[in-house]
Amino acid sequence: MIIKKLADVPFADLRGYDKVTKQIVIGPADGSTEIVMRYFSMAPGGTTAHHAHDFPHLVAIQAGRGVVIDADGVEHPLKKGDYLFIRDNEAHHLANTGTEPFDFICVVPRRGEE
Amino acid sequence: MIIKKLADVPFADLRGYDKVTKQIVIGPADGSTEIVMRYFSMAPGGTTAHHAHDFPHLVAIQAGRGVVIDADGVEHPLKKGDYLFIRDNEAHHLANTGTEPFDFICVVPRRGEE
Repeated sequence: MIIKKLADVPFADLRGYDKVTKQIVIGPADGSTEIVMRYFSMAPGGTTAHHAHDFPHLVAIQAGRGVVIDADGVEHPLKKGDYLFIRDNEAHHLANTGTEPFDFICVVPRRGEE
Repeated sequence: MIIKKLADVPFADLRGYDKVTKQIVIGPADGSTEIVMRYFSMAPGGTTAHHAHDFPHLVAIQAGRGVVIDADGVEHPLKKGDYLFIRDNEAHHLANTGTEPFDFICVVPRRGEE
């Protein structure tokens, strides 16, 4: 088994995003061949790109306040203790709408983390 | 997409365990066919059974203090902000060694949640 503290996990390359950091907490480098657990931290004003892809997201909000924007452009609020499931091919993005970091765990199948 | 608050997720049946609750936060009932995200809360003194199985666990500690006991009986401390990867077929169990609830997210592939 492998035990890690989040602070010891290096930051992954996240080209095209400012105000967002990503850490691959449990992934292929640990021998996890099926599922990858990532940790994202988004500064106030930060956002991800609106996109869709052929794999799901299983998201657990860890801190802060933000929104997920769905395929119709509708904003749905999210805060610590909320969970979000985004299906394969469902367009989405997330944004920090608060004044503190908006942090979430995002789990994907292996093909979602190349 | 589906958004849930943890408090709205029903408790799953967990026969044989006292002092432990389980919630299937994102799973087959939500259309998640590949990956299942579960939330466990363990009261002080609570423990899971020592076992091994043919699927991995990806664990994110959410609250409290506990330990994971490995195949050799060695205890490894865990607390909020720690992450644990247990490989397929690796014997393990978790226990609350603190005075507050020990809570964790445990992600498994679909075959790990029948």
